[in-house]
Order: sequence, then C-alpha cells, then structure tokens
Amino acid sequence: MNVINLDHMSSNPLLPEVKAAMIEAINADYGNPSSQHKLGDKASEVLDASREKVAGLINAAKPREVVFTSCGTESVNYAIKGIALAHADKGKHIITSNIEHKAVIRSLRTLKMLGYQVSSLPVDGLGRVDPEMVAKAIRDDTILITIMHSNNEIGTIQPIREIAEIARAKKVFFHADAVDSVGVVPMDVQKLGVDLLSFASNPFYGPTGVGGVYVRSGTKIWPLMDGGIQENNKRAGTENLIGILGMGVAAELARLHMDKRLSHFRSLKEALLKGLPETIDEYIVNGHPEHVLPNLVSLSLKYIEGESVILMLDDDNIAASTRSACASGSLRASHVLLSIGLEFADAQGTLVITFGLENTEKDVRTFLGALKNVVTTLRSMSPLYKKAS
Amino acid sequence: MNVINLDHMSSNPLLPEVKAAMIEAINADYGNPSSQHKLGDKASEVLDASREKVAGLINAAKPREVVFTSCGTESVNYAIKGIALAHADKGKHIITSNIEHKAVIRSLRTLKMLGYQVSSLPVDGLGRVDPEMVAKAIRDDTILITIMHSNNEIGTIQPIREIAEIARAKKVFFHADAVDSVGVVPMDVQKLGVDLLSFASNPFYGPTGVGGVYVRSGTKIWPLMDGGIQENNKRAGTENLIGILGMGVAAELARLHMDKRLSHFRSLKEALLKGLPETIDEYIVNGHPEHVLPNLVSLSLKYIEGESVILMLDDDNIAASTRSACASGSLRASHVLLSIGLEFADAQGTLVITFGLENTEKDVRTFLGALKNVVTTLRSMSPLYKKAS
Repeated sequence: MNVINLDHMSSNPLLPEVKAAMIEAINADYGNPSSQHKLGDKASEVLDASREKVAGLINAAKPREVVFTSCGTESVNYAIKGIALAHADKGKHIITSNIEHKAVIRSLRTLKMLGYQVSSLPVDGLGRVDPEMVAKAIRDDTILITIMHSNNEIGTIQPIREIAEIARAKKVFFHADAVDSVGVVPMDVQKLGVDLLSFASNPFYGPTGVGGVYVRSGTKIWPLMDGGIQENNKRAGTENLIGILGMGVAAELARLHMDKRLSHFRSLKEALLKGLPETIDEYIVNGHPEHVLPNLVSLSLKYIEGESVILMLDDDNIAASTRSACASGSLRASHVLLSIGLEFADAQGTLVITFGLENTEKDVRTFLGALKNVVTTLRSMSPLYKKAS
Repeated sequence: MNVINLDHMSSNPLLPEVKAAMIEAINADYGNPSSQHKLGDKASEVLDASREKVAGLINAAKPREVVFTSCGTESVNYAIKGIALAHADKGKHIITSNIEHKAVIRSLRTLKMLGYQVSSLPVDGLGRVDPEMVAKAIRDDTILITIMHSNNEIGTIQPIREIAEIARAKKVFFHADAVDSVGVVPMDVQKLGVDLLSFASNPFYGPTGVGGVYVRSGTKIWPLMDGGIQENNKRAGTENLIGILGMGVAAELARLHMDKRLSHFRSLKEALLKGLPETIDEYIVNGHPEHVLPNLVSLSLKYIEGESVILMLDDDNIAASTRSACASGSLRASHVLLSIGLEFADAQGTLVITFGLENTEKDVRTFLGALKNVVTTLRSMSPLYKKAS
C-alpha cells in the first residue's frame, strides 16, 4: 500500500536518526534516572542531554526551563491549570481566543467548574487576535492569557510577541499553545517573551507520547501530576526515557534543518496554491496569507462535505483530514471556521492538507488530479450544488 | 560493569519479547489511531489488542474499562482527582491511609487546597489498615476511599476486598493504587470489587512512560487530561503507541508466567531471610509476613544509615534502595516506616531489596557477603553503635 500522506499533522513518521536512537535505548535498558545507584546514571545523562537539545530548539535560557510531559495535551493542561491553581490568590480570570484547540477549551471548562472566569476573544477573518482587544480584556483579577501560537485548522500564526508585551506590562502570565508550531517554524521563547509555551515531539518527527512545556525561570506553577520530585518538582512520574531520547534527537535535527525544511514546505504549498485554480472552482483558502504555517493549506470546498472528500481520497490512497475534531467522530462544524466567518455549509466542506518532509511536487500533482475527480463526483450528487448552479 | 540489580522496583529491564515488539513498532510507523484515513488503521488495531491484553491481566469485564495513561503517577492523579471533581455535588470527603505513595498524598493535598477534606487512617505494626476503621470513617459526604494495594517500602498488601465491600455497601467509590502489585501478584478487579485500580507497565517488565487505570463501567469520572476524545473520552492526548504496545506484550507475558515468577521470587526471598541471621545481627524485617509482595524485603539495620549502605553497596556493584523517597534527594525518615512504629533512627537505617526475574540465589549470597562487610564497616564508625554496645 503506497499512501500519499498529506495529513502529517495527525502523524509524522519517525526520522531514521530518531528510530536508531530509540532502538539503541530499548536495547540498552538505561534504568531510572531517580534511582540511588549507578544503574540510573546513564538514564540521568540521557535526560539531561535531551533537555538541552529541546531547550536549544526553542532557545530557552536554561535547560531546566523545559519540563517533559507525555503529550501536547498534557503540556497545555499543565500550563493552564498549573498557573490557575498557583495564582488563585491573585484572581481567577483568564483570557483566551475563540479558536483554541480542545485541550485549551476543555482545560478552561474544568477551571470554570472550579469558579474561574474566562473571557474568550474573537478573531478576524484571517484568524488573528487583535492585541488591542487583549489589552482591553485584562482586569485586576486576570492571572493568565492563553492564546495559541498557530492554529491547527487554518494555520494562522498569532501576534504572540505583541500579546506577550501587553501581558508583561500588566503582570499577567502568558501561555502560548505552540504544539503545531515548535519544530515547524523558528521559535525563540526569549524573543517572543512568553512565560509558558506548550509543544509536542511528533510535529517535528519525534515519537508520540512525549511533549514538553517551557516554564520561564521563577514562574510559580502548581503540578498537574502530583507525586515525586521528578522534572525539578514540576512533573511527577517515572519518565518516558525512550520517548524523551527520541524527542531530543528530533529537536536537534529540527533546529539544524529548519531553513531547509521551511523552503521545502513553502515550495510544496506554492505548487498546491498555484495548481488549485486550474483544478477546481468555488473554493476558499482559509487563514492568513503571510502569518501562517508553511506546511498547512486549509481549503473550503463549496457544496460538498469534507468528510466525504476524505473518504474518497482515502480510496485513492491519499491521506488528508478535516481537522474539525482533534480525534475523529464529530460531524459538527468547526468552531475555528465559524469564528473566521465561514458559513456553516462551507465550514463542513473543509479539507486540511499538511505536508511532510517526504512529500514531493509529484504528490501535489497526484493530489490535485484526485481532488478534481472527487469534487466533480461529489458535486454531481450534491443538492446544494444543483440549486446553486 | 556487571551490576547485581536488587532494586527492580526502581527499574525493570524490558523483556526480550517487549523489546522486539517495540522495535517492530518503531520501524513500522503505525500512525495515529484517531486519524480519518487508512494510515491510522494499524494504530487502532495495536491499541485495541493492547487494551485486551491489559484487561486480561487484571480480569476486567470489558477491555474499555482500561484507560491508558503515561505512568502510575498519572493513573493515581486521574483516579483520585477525577472522582473528586465528578462527585463534588455529593460531598468532598475522602478517606485514605497513612502509608500511601506520594502520588496519592500530593493529589490529596491539591484537593484539600480546593476545599476537600481528607481522613487519613493509621496502620498496624505490620502495615495493615483495619477495615473496621474504614467503615467508621465513612461520612454522609464521603465520596472516595483511596488505599494502596501494596506498599512500595514494606510490601504489605492491604485487605482490599474487605474494604471494597464496605465501600460498596455505603455507595462510596473505592480506588486502589496497585502500581507495585499489578503484574507482580495475581490481580482480579472483579473479585476484589474495586471501582478504580491504578497500575503501571514497568513493574511487569514493560516500558516506563506508560500506565493504566481500571475504571469500572458506569463510573462517572472527570478527565485529568482535558482535550480530545481519545480513550473513550476519558484521557485526551495522542497515544504513546509504542509504549502501549510494549505494555500489552508485557501484560500478556505476566499473566501467562505469573505462577512461575511467584515461585521464583518466593525462593529468592526465602534464601535471603534464611541467610540474614547468619550474616548480621540487630535488624528488623518490616512488613506483613504473609500479606506481602513476594519480591520485596524491607530491612531496618540498627545504628547505621540506609543511604550509606546504598552507596557502599553501589561500590560493590550491587544496586539497592532506601525507597524512602520516590525520587532520591531526601534524607528525612520515611512516613511509612514511622507509621508502622519504627524509631526515627531505625527508619533511617532501612534498606529495600526488590528482586527481579534475572536474579539468582548466587546474587543473594553475593549480597549477603557484601552486606556483612558494609554493616561491619559502618557500625565500626557509628557513635550510636558504640554507645549501645
């Protein structure tokens, strides 16, 4: 089965170097970094080395500002709930945007249950939050602003540095969910000025089941995972050492090959956007044209359903996604697409393409050919299309 | 370096079958079980198969009663906080014991901060909770009893079935932290009658960074990890598929080889307990003689410090532990040992031996020889010993 993967945001394959390092670790039995004897020494070294590599990828001032977690979702839960619980004495108000990932939305839902208040800000038609609106939303009891770095459905990148400046001036903590950005676009937590940044390993070709949070030195935060003193007392639990090792290797490669990967993604995206008008009509390309992930294209295809497009492309051995649910199983229209002003029907007709390192311009041509057939077939069956034409 | 590992509770090496399965998974790139196309099909199969194997190990009625987590600590946090948050409308009182693991103690600390009340019950000199005391501690607003299955420092196994009966009669949820028991001793959640049971993969020779919780069907529980709908909406986050696969393989082997492992551990423990009186004097063997883990021996050595014993044994290439801290770095006396009535000094002189599959009776003899020298040397320097003799 030779499948063209255009849904890398769901799953990236592991890089050969990452595989080799993980297999070596599996065979070596490194032990437990917290143990009191020499069997744990190698494990401690692995942990330290990976932390340095991950810190290098985001330009953290100190490796210990990186806290390893089990996934991007845990990172987001920890950052948001950890700040909320640690600073409840100052206030219980949190600011967010209308287009966040479910991990953010549902973490905030839990906090609301515990008496916190949440202000959720709208975005413009390109999916951007206005920093001025953030400034206006800050109250005396605001303790946290949580706004995503890039959106996983439309790719729009937020004005993080501007928001961070506002947050800092008002002494409010700022967390950016950068799960789909870290390792994909250049990231410098010191230049951005964020206090917390969530990320995961798989977006930059490391294993699933491992992620991290940048927590700026001196930030008071309550653990999500209570227990032992691992991760500088920030995250209890025996470490996923094999995963952390793989993440470290992937982080170093992402840093070293960032420029090459960016231009690879940009050329694929350009080829796709150039080919589209010659292939289909009546579609919308969502998201910001400039402040946007280089590896993502969001397409709303009028008169048809994204789910049906995915299924037909799957028959053609092309993997794509609607991304309207973090995990499949929901047919409601995406809150992100409705927030940027799409009609309900157009939102349902949305397809998200995410490129990976192994994709080629030939893949783009194959995809465009398949898309033409799928769209023609589905529209020929669509009562909405017949009514419109 | 040929180290004799007598600290398997810190870290078990992976079984060859587990390694092989994980390496195969790493090479195969199974994809994301939640994706909308065929690239995720194999991942879904792996997830289902592992869930069945883990359910088999604890005799869960249905595989979907098993929720995968990132470690035993997460399992405990989820079980305790999940029940507390979901049933706050009924009450905010929780019952526990004085000898729980830090993951339990600190999860409860967080809940106290949120307005919950905790009653912590004493244990007898052998480390057992009296079920009658549990019954008496239940109030109208009690929502949860959380008591460990086995203790990680003294090995004592609690009367879980009796406590579960009491909990059921009073309609209170019962969670047992069985992180050091599952896969080590036979476990049947249906016979035990628990509502929730926490466990991890490494104690039965699976990888670190993966664990699970048994959640009885119909139990209302709030997520610890908010986000997507993975794990039947109980635990958001992209799965650690490689780890889960390894855990499944390890679970099946633990079930199949349980009897053989039990008799292996028992013969090693017997050899150690038999050899001790011929080797050293003035020591205490802690824990229950019968209701106890078969792979653990807790020894309090009078007049000396456990930490020094560990360091000197490490020089002799023998790995052991004091287990008085989940992660090293604390010199305070263990709350568990003080709870069973040990003097502060004796608690500090405690050494915990945990056997593994590869240990032999020769390892026990080597350990006893080394222990004799270490104890003699340390006591010759000990002012306490000189005063006593």
